[in-house]
Amino acid sequence: MIKAGIVGGTGYTGVELLRLLGQHPQVELRAITSRGEAGTAVADMFPSLRGRVDLNFVDPGAAKLEACDLVFFATPNGVAMSQARALLDAGVKVVDLSADFRIKDRAEWEKWYGMQHAAPELIAEAVYGLPEVNREKIRSARLVANPGCYPTAVQLGFLPLIESGAVDIAHLIADAKSGVSGAGRKAEVHTLFAEASDNFKAYGAGGHRHLPEIRQQLSIAAGKPVGLTFVPHLTPIIRGIHATLYARIDREADFQALYEARFKSEPFVDVLPFGSHPETRSVRAANVCRVALHRPQGGDILVVLSVIDNLVKGAAGQAVQNMNIMFGFDECAGLTQIPVLP
Amino acid sequence: MIKAGIVGGTGYTGVELLRLLGQHPQVELRAITSRGEAGTAVADMFPSLRGRVDLNFVDPGAAKLEACDLVFFATPNGVAMSQARALLDAGVKVVDLSADFRIKDRAEWEKWYGMQHAAPELIAEAVYGLPEVNREKIRSARLVANPGCYPTAVQLGFLPLIESGAVDIAHLIADAKSGVSGAGRKAEVHTLFAEASDNFKAYGAGGHRHLPEIRQQLSIAAGKPVGLTFVPHLTPIIRGIHATLYARIDREADFQALYEARFKSEPFVDVLPFGSHPETRSVRAANVCRVALHRPQGGDILVVLSVIDNLVKGAAGQAVQNMNIMFGFDECAGLTQIPVLP
Amino acid sequence: MIKAGIVGGTGYTGVELLRLLGQHPQVELRAITSRGEAGTAVADMFPSLRGRVDLNFVDPGAAKLEACDLVFFATPNGVAMSQARALLDAGVKVVDLSADFRIKDRAEWEKWYGMQHAAPELIAEAVYGLPEVNREKIRSARLVANPGCYPTAVQLGFLPLIESGAVDIAHLIADAKSGVSGAGRKAEVHTLFAEASDNFKAYGAGGHRHLPEIRQQLSIAAGKPVGLTFVPHLTPIIRGIHATLYARIDREADFQALYEARFKSEPFVDVLPFGSHPETRSVRAANVCRVALHRPQGGDILVVLSVIDNLVKGAAGQAVQNMNIMFGFDECAGLTQIPVLP
Amino acid sequence: MIKAGIVGGTGYTGVELLRLLGQHPQVELRAITSRGEAGTAVADMFPSLRGRVDLNFVDPGAAKLEACDLVFFATPNGVAMSQARALLDAGVKVVDLSADFRIKDRAEWEKWYGMQHAAPELIAEAVYGLPEVNREKIRSARLVANPGCYPTAVQLGFLPLIESGAVDIAHLIADAKSGVSGAGRKAEVHTLFAEASDNFKAYGAGGHRHLPEIRQQLSIAAGKPVGLTFVPHLTPIIRGIHATLYARIDREADFQALYEARFKSEPFVDVLPFGSHPETRSVRAANVCRVALHRPQGGDILVVLSVIDNLVKGAAGQAVQNMNIMFGFDECAGLTQIPVLP
Repeated sequence: MIKAGIVGGTGYTGVELLRLLGQHPQVELRAITSRGEAGTAVADMFPSLRGRVDLNFVDPGAAKLEACDLVFFATPNGVAMSQARALLDAGVKVVDLSADFRIKDRAEWEKWYGMQHAAPELIAEAVYGLPEVNREKIRSARLVANPGCYPTAVQLGFLPLIESGAVDIAHLIADAKSGVSGAGRKAEVHTLFAEASDNFKAYGAGGHRHLPEIRQQLSIAAGKPVGLTFVPHLTPIIRGIHATLYARIDREADFQALYEARFKSEPFVDVLPFGSHPETRSVRAANVCRVALHRPQGGDILVVLSVIDNLVKGAAGQAVQNMNIMFGFDECAGLTQIPVLP
Repeated sequence: MIKAGIVGGTGYTGVELLRLLGQHPQVELRAITSRGEAGTAVADMFPSLRGRVDLNFVDPGAAKLEACDLVFFATPNGVAMSQARALLDAGVKVVDLSADFRIKDRAEWEKWYGMQHAAPELIAEAVYGLPEVNREKIRSARLVANPGCYPTAVQLGFLPLIESGAVDIAHLIADAKSGVSGAGRKAEVHTLFAEASDNFKAYGAGGHRHLPEIRQQLSIAAGKPVGLTFVPHLTPIIRGIHATLYARIDREADFQALYEARFKSEPFVDVLPFGSHPETRSVRAANVCRVALHRPQGGDILVVLSVIDNLVKGAAGQAVQNMNIMFGFDECAGLTQIPVLP
Repeated sequence: MIKAGIVGGTGYTGVELLRLLGQHPQVELRAITSRGEAGTAVADMFPSLRGRVDLNFVDPGAAKLEACDLVFFATPNGVAMSQARALLDAGVKVVDLSADFRIKDRAEWEKWYGMQHAAPELIAEAVYGLPEVNREKIRSARLVANPGCYPTAVQLGFLPLIESGAVDIAHLIADAKSGVSGAGRKAEVHTLFAEASDNFKAYGAGGHRHLPEIRQQLSIAAGKPVGLTFVPHLTPIIRGIHATLYARIDREADFQALYEARFKSEPFVDVLPFGSHPETRSVRAANVCRVALHRPQGGDILVVLSVIDNLVKGAAGQAVQNMNIMFGFDECAGLTQIPVLP
Repeated sequence: MIKAGIVGGTGYTGVELLRLLGQHPQVELRAITSRGEAGTAVADMFPSLRGRVDLNFVDPGAAKLEACDLVFFATPNGVAMSQARALLDAGVKVVDLSADFRIKDRAEWEKWYGMQHAAPELIAEAVYGLPEVNREKIRSARLVANPGCYPTAVQLGFLPLIESGAVDIAHLIADAKSGVSGAGRKAEVHTLFAEASDNFKAYGAGGHRHLPEIRQQLSIAAGKPVGLTFVPHLTPIIRGIHATLYARIDREADFQALYEARFKSEPFVDVLPFGSHPETRSVRAANVCRVALHRPQGGDILVVLSVIDNLVKGAAGQAVQNMNIMFGFDECAGLTQIPVLP
């Protein structure tokens, strides 16, 4: 039983962490902070948690997070980098669900996120928390940078292909579609129901913050820089990411076998039979990525379909998975929910 | 550990039973039948169950249901009444999620359901499976008639009021709204996405099959016949029922206290603070009913708001709750999922 | 051809006015104001208007509204009452889509709207713009108070019944459901897609601002005060209101004939055959109210179903209808769009 | 004023034709056929048409279509090819909204549509009804093959690029997303609300019937065979197609200028400023295609975003546009509706 805290619990990744940790057998939730909502019962803001989470939000100053074994940051970008150092120094492990420690190139991070990095000395130490790539490093990490939602779906879809060296990595295409919860629980006009419902659109086609993160990770996998065109879209679903990935084949291989071998021991990646079409609802509210391959008309373009729940495998679930690894728990502990369908 | 079977597992109550039983610590799922899909892997039809439910659908004839301890009927009306007798004779307990055994007045049942009852001798034996009313009878029942979704939401909302004798029971009004999964997984035009989405309508205002069921149960609670106007509506959500109930106060009482006392020991009924507005998503995918009271302008009309997930507390979850009671398990076993929000 | 202006054009009633006026044969749109968006092309904010509305938003100070024949206020409550006097003095007619002039009892208005009325002397002059009730007064009005969306649906549904004197007007019940655009184009958390989608809830059950408006108008129709319980709900559709109305019959009458006679000459009220269920999509994007009657189980409760598009017959369309009457145009001019289904 | 008939009016393209023709100044609708619904009032099936379309469905045998000037086929594939000959011989012009005459290569058609072609001699005569490509041929056509919805969105998005010769036409990628009405008004499980709502998926990635149609037309534009990967997706919106198109640049050009020049005189194609993100709702219920260009990170991949309403520019609206051209009407007659937003 470890003691865990959450910084910034009023957003969607926060409430999802609460849902998952509230059912986790080895975690005692000690504190959840919110500057704006200090004193409010968590269950008053999120009635789904009535009778299940009895905490009040507390002011960050009063949260005694240094007494926790682990602190999750479910905060906007820019917060974790200011507070991680003190927690680490107090012997607290940190899983940051924001983007503060995902990008290794500080200048690149500062360009895309528009601020100066407050803890550059921690960037190198931070482990990029995609267990399917970095499981061993996560095991001994003090500071884990939990991947973004798009990056999780796109990486898991592309990885076996890129590691195989069989495709043209200079012209990868990722056409990705996200549910609206991906935009967070912020009051903004463009994500209002009357704006986002019965509507489909691309956004950030010229450049999205997840691009450098995906590019960095795929380049590491390839051993050299990859070229990637990444176009995100907003689809009127609450949860879910669907990535449709295109790569040109340079060299023949048994791609289906490649994927099955790569993910054989992964508890949270499910390779569907060749030619399947995974649906976002097939992973709704669960920590799973489902992947399927297509080769239209037997041509030289391979199509990979990859789905996750952006709030689970794309955020809170992956954070819990990282926690399980960091503390030597069963990697699946607290993450065995069956997806909710319909 | 008991052995359970499901007859008719291709509908929404079927897949929801699978989701819940697949996480239940004391149930081994032995067989799930489908005439049309015999041989198909359950997880091929419902990819959300991949890796979690390894059964194939089997033909009813080959299912050996008589070797089970319990059989659930998740079938269209008219099936359970033909098959229950043989199972009961073989010592198998039965929970029927269809309407075959809900109405005690056989003629009334035959009028509303348009067929002759095939097992009239079992009607009297069947226990109406609303644990908040019949827990003791359920404990020793062989045959449980699992309540309808609307009847669950409306009864739990009205019960304390009617038992109190403080309102005019001759003119109760239940304005109820259901998500589209309530119509089942049948190919019909009026529940197509392009018909039901971005649309709201009443249906069955002249008379809906759940009316006699609700009326029967409220009359039992009142000790005399009640008068009820019941208007169901279709709202474009997947899961959820919201019942808005109106009753005229005949005699003053502390209604909030009444509700809190009535449901104090109920694990699955949550009485919100007076003046709250429960949302259907606050119970999404969980076995909970949340209820709240209003007294607009301090007048003589009491308004009760009651929400459930029609597939859980309104169907499969309640069936599992009944099973837990019938077999002496913890009543909450397998039913502790936290609602999925957002 | 008249010259029209719009004050406050960045909300949903504003853009809907633009859609309707952009297709109106006798209106030249001269100015649309917005303090925050002055200089922005209307079509940049609302790309649906590209090539159809060439105006820029202008600062209210620069709009020269006094040169218009008519000004629409599509503003938050509290704006029109400060500006109407000057326009009327300049000979400009005014249709106010906000609530500033709807309530005749100033103290009542101030109580519900939480501010002091800035133009109390205009309250009496303002004509409540429900053409089905006040057509003759609208014809000669200088200042029209365009009805609220709920009040339009509820009044058109209840009017013939109340005028008939055949029902108990002390205990009317209006259970109303609104699409999310009714909350306006304001950035708020509770109307975000991820909050309002796949969710149904009541709100304001204890008291909603449209209650006094409906009560006032129904009381005028009845010739004495009515008692009304009004419970609004939020349903995940963009446009549409569905009012389910309940009244206890005091005296028998041919209610269907009553409704058909009452609305026989009304171009925008459609009485469906007895026992029909009007859907909100059957009026989507059109200036129509459809009404249907039910008498469940032949009892003494009459149920009326009434649907409108909250942005059209419930706001901008009714405003254009009022304009047509005020200026002697064909009442249907610019309002002949066929509803969009599916 | 011409006399028009519709064969097969019970689907979504049928009711949309009725909506558009019901507002068209030069068309008298004479007959609408349905074998299954003969005798039913059109407005009983589609209440949105109450008071606007007074016809009953008639049996095809009794429809006297040969007395019409024009007949639209809004039928499943395989019907128009059996009936077109007789109508043409009677001097009636035909616009076929199905796929019967879209593919010039008869063997290719028979392969993808799984039936023998009943009127092969008409294939060559049929004019592919994309006005932006074939306006002059449409003017004198007797038989117009109205394009598919995906093909319209993809062609209008790719055409200027392909005509320019500046991109690699061997590896075009079209990632397309469709609203659910594109699947038609057929009772099927996978398009039920409870299946398609809150869900996103690809389908037909291995080969969709619109692929050969798009490939044929793009090859004509290129003057040589193109290579195309086409992956369609289902997004939970009622109407709308969003095509995201990827092409590798072979030769530099001012692509924005290219698009603006190509569509300068087109009344129904709107080229947005470079870097825009067109939304499907910006064309909802209107006969418009909006297109925008992106060049992510200034690289060698050009991204084109193209949106239409699948039932209007993708079906019924384009059919009316073709009719306008065939009969010498103003090309915009009856097609000036402003898109419905929100």
